[in-house]
Amino acid sequence: MERRFRLSGFPQQTDFNNALDAEILATISAAARDAPPAHQETLSVYDIMLYHLGFLDEQFKPNRSDVGKRIRPLLCVLACEASGGEQRVAMPMAAAIELLHNFTLIHDDIQDQSPLRRHRPTVWSLWGIAQAINAGDAMFATAHLALMRSLDAGVPTERVLALSRSLHDTTLRIVEGQVLDLGFETRSDVTADEYMQMIGGKSAAICRCACWAGATIAGAKPGDAEVIGEAGYALGVGFQLRDDILGIWGAPDATGKAAADDIRRRKKSLPILLLHDRASAGDRETIEHLYNEQEVPPDGVEQILNMLDEYQVEDAVQEQAHNWHDRATSLIQSSLGSGPARDALEQLVGALVARVG
Amino acid sequence: MERRFRLSGFPQQTDFNNALDAEILATISAAARDAPPAHQETLSVYDIMLYHLGFLDEQFKPNRSDVGKRIRPLLCVLACEASGGEQRVAMPMAAAIELLHNFTLIHDDIQDQSPLRRHRPTVWSLWGIAQAINAGDAMFATAHLALMRSLDAGVPTERVLALSRSLHDTTLRIVEGQVLDLGFETRSDVTADEYMQMIGGKSAAICRCACWAGATIAGAKPGDAEVIGEAGYALGVGFQLRDDILGIWGAPDATGKAAADDIRRRKKSLPILLLHDRASAGDRETIEHLYNEQEVPPDGVEQILNMLDEYQVEDAVQEQAHNWHDRATSLIQSSLGSGPARDALEQLVGALVARVG
Repeated sequence: MERRFRLSGFPQQTDFNNALDAEILATISAAARDAPPAHQETLSVYDIMLYHLGFLDEQFKPNRSDVGKRIRPLLCVLACEASGGEQRVAMPMAAAIELLHNFTLIHDDIQDQSPLRRHRPTVWSLWGIAQAINAGDAMFATAHLALMRSLDAGVPTERVLALSRSLHDTTLRIVEGQVLDLGFETRSDVTADEYMQMIGGKSAAICRCACWAGATIAGAKPGDAEVIGEAGYALGVGFQLRDDILGIWGAPDATGKAAADDIRRRKKSLPILLLHDRASAGDRETIEHLYNEQEVPPDGVEQILNMLDEYQVEDAVQEQAHNWHDRATSLIQSSLGSGPARDALEQLVGALVARVG
Repeated sequence: MERRFRLSGFPQQTDFNNALDAEILATISAAARDAPPAHQETLSVYDIMLYHLGFLDEQFKPNRSDVGKRIRPLLCVLACEASGGEQRVAMPMAAAIELLHNFTLIHDDIQDQSPLRRHRPTVWSLWGIAQAINAGDAMFATAHLALMRSLDAGVPTERVLALSRSLHDTTLRIVEGQVLDLGFETRSDVTADEYMQMIGGKSAAICRCACWAGATIAGAKPGDAEVIGEAGYALGVGFQLRDDILGIWGAPDATGKAAADDIRRRKKSLPILLLHDRASAGDRETIEHLYNEQEVPPDGVEQILNMLDEYQVEDAVQEQAHNWHDRATSLIQSSLGSGPARDALEQLVGALVARVG
């Protein structure tokens, strides 16, 4: 089979989308773009969806610059090919995964009251909470309708049903994670274990689903598909931990966020929870005091950054991220035969855990 | 086959649930109640779902009084039996329809900022908007997981996929209707045609799905299932028009709402749109003036009630409701063989369009 993606020149320290084969990403994007039905209402929920996905601008005119990394659908397509399947057969499920992810983002932005997503105004900030709820709900249904196209791509009926069930199970895991995360906001006793459980649902479950689905579409044995799913889960956890690091120590140019933004926003990410565990009683009191306000002031951010340094938290989190990355890599190596698709998957894992933005 | 529901004594002017066979409703309820997975989180989204469904109270203790009329799942079960299928085979889909309906209600209550639903505080008013979004999302996924149990009940794989697709199409119709409805709030030029399109999506689509699904599960020919679906759609429109009448002229004791509540809340339901069409220029100005405020004051409500009387609007809307009811009845009679299940379906149609609460 002809290689249609090349990850060999994959740069570890820059925007990795540029390095991915444009064709595979374009195919994923096209599958996502074509999923919403044609329409002609005054204010259309489908236009709002296409805005969120980056295909339209605020005036619903075509948007030139694609947005979103499309990592999750890419995992699905690569896992399919690495398991001996064809990319095109996995495309409908890949689109479904991207759409499902974006449904959760639209609702997440309402819940977090986030004004920006991928450097653009969020749906709720432009069209209000009520219509943003609608856009997310429609995106959810559209994800599953995109999945149904797997039948046309030749995926057997039973397998399509299994994929559908997996997407719904994944949705429950994501929502469970989101419920936990929202609960953390008003608690001062969140443990690192609870945090890992939360990101396991909110961030890692969909990566597990993507990898499992790719292998399943390719006809992998259930046990093998589970192992590849585990690799996806490990990758997803590592990805989130890297996100936590970037939210505190990332360069604003690369992340598109202000420096130490997660501290200012009092996010209870793993670095802060580890700091809380390690800090002296006095330091802990300082942290809790600072986290009692609506927002941590600049000098407070500075104080916390100094403590994180003192208690060597960044290294500890990066070590955990690397452990999850190693786990993902070894699961991939043990369950997939060597070949270019497996190499690409491994390189994606490496790039994600080392990314800077 | 033994008749397990009795609608013959179906009273047309009282709470019709009392007249339905308790067993069939209990089975539908049990199927809905058992759909959410077991769990043990501190604040569980599944407990919130079970609260909304009426199985738990605000403290998550068992709730004695069942809530909700379960009309939509009942349509599914009756359409299945009237098409020659067994009730139990339709139960998973019936539960899915009830759960899907309730997912839209949870989100609807956020969008409309409604404090009460079925005489109880709404989910968002108890646990906040963010968690209510989560509860709705989880209910959506749970609806489809409930549907998957159709496989265990013996529904063939292809048919389960068709049911799943139909639920997703229905969700899009509901969301499209909701988008229109929200748009109406800020417009003064809504037409009766637009209104009919809106309720076609928001209210009638799920009744179409319920009836179509019941027939499909029973193995009806696609064309026959479509006709029964059309009957469901007509029933759904008639149901909503009756709702519009009750929202203005219903007795508070029976509806659980204040008298003329839809006028006070400036709801642009069909009676108001017809009044707007029929009114003289002067009367129209008065209406628009009253509808410019946040809420219509008591004397304004009185004024509008008088105009509705003068322009004979209630009769006009009731006539439309009856026409839809007649259409539903004749579609049922033309497409289903006579028998007790068809009789029950017809009686349900009659009871719904004549209901007082």
